[in-house]
Amino acid sequence: MGNRKKYQITEYCHRFLADYIKPGDCCVDATCGNGGDTEFLCRMVGENGRVYGFDIQEQAVSRTAQRLENAGCGERARLYCAGHEHMAEYVKEEAAVIMFNFGYLPGGDHRIATQADTSLEAVEAGLSLLKPDGVMSLCIYSGGDTGYEEKEKLLAFLRELDPGKWLVLVCGYWNRKNDPPLPVFVLRLDPR
Amino acid sequence: MGNRKKYQITEYCHRFLADYIKPGDCCVDATCGNGGDTEFLCRMVGENGRVYGFDIQEQAVSRTAQRLENAGCGERARLYCAGHEHMAEYVKEEAAVIMFNFGYLPGGDHRIATQADTSLEAVEAGLSLLKPDGVMSLCIYSGGDTGYEEKEKLLAFLRELDPGKWLVLVCGYWNRKNDPPLPVFVLRLDPR
Repeated sequence: MGNRKKYQITEYCHRFLADYIKPGDCCVDATCGNGGDTEFLCRMVGENGRVYGFDIQEQAVSRTAQRLENAGCGERARLYCAGHEHMAEYVKEEAAVIMFNFGYLPGGDHRIATQADTSLEAVEAGLSLLKPDGVMSLCIYSGGDTGYEEKEKLLAFLRELDPGKWLVLVCGYWNRKNDPPLPVFVLRLDPR
Repeated sequence: MGNRKKYQITEYCHRFLADYIKPGDCCVDATCGNGGDTEFLCRMVGENGRVYGFDIQEQAVSRTAQRLENAGCGERARLYCAGHEHMAEYVKEEAAVIMFNFGYLPGGDHRIATQADTSLEAVEAGLSLLKPDGVMSLCIYSGGDTGYEEKEKLLAFLRELDPGKWLVLVCGYWNRKNDPPLPVFVLRLDPR
């Protein structure tokens, strides 16, 4: 069953990203949610690293802060109750890894979800912060009546990224039914 | 540029598969070609491991044998000039990793290429040999007037695999133009 767990989307992303994070790096969790990814990033960057976390919901930010405190790595994080499209106003260094989880807060109010236009702005802001050889992960959710417009806009935008500068891997679950989440990875190839 | 190389398809597959191979394992290269993957597998399984290699072209088998000899790991391999759809007649143990590269021999006669029907048979044979937690990689090429039928048949077959028993990841290059190769990974989830 270890393998099954390993291929839940969060574990899948962590496995992929772990190769790209070194102690002391700066990373960004663009959508803290319950803080699982923020904690992962804090562990990976070590005590000399820095993780910036964003969420528009105060509930998510406080849950994440509590989680990091429990894990003993709260001092590595800077958490902001702000939309991820504003991340470049807060992050003033290059990031090795930037993580996005679109959609709504797990266990929270489903009416409050990321939106296509601000998500696209946030991804563009993230790309501007990504260092050479850095990676952005995007977990895109769609299902019921939500998420389709966001997914379509994000994928259309990523399709047009210059292949000499960016490598975009769309790594879908091919044989799962009912709108499985879609993990996407964007690697910065150019040295700037 | 290291990163760019890392995301050529062969390197991409090797990175993914490396986690699934332990010293002493049995692996299969279903399509030896120039032997690059066979050598990778031989290195990964170590001196107590075993790699079975198949190719329908004598030229490919002899190139691969020479390559393994040069690399000092020839004794770990059993190479057969036989179609990959017959692999289960030769391999009598469970495999940790099985690699496929469809299409024609690089630098060889483009008229001699893998064919949709036998490729499908070979993949089914491979799945029957894969051990729990084992992985099959399939690099699918299409372009010009070739490979489309094979790609379509393979993807249709993989789409129907029971999601409780198999995890199928289709990991495409999203922003490359002109028919980029398509890496696919199939993980055996069930304990049999």
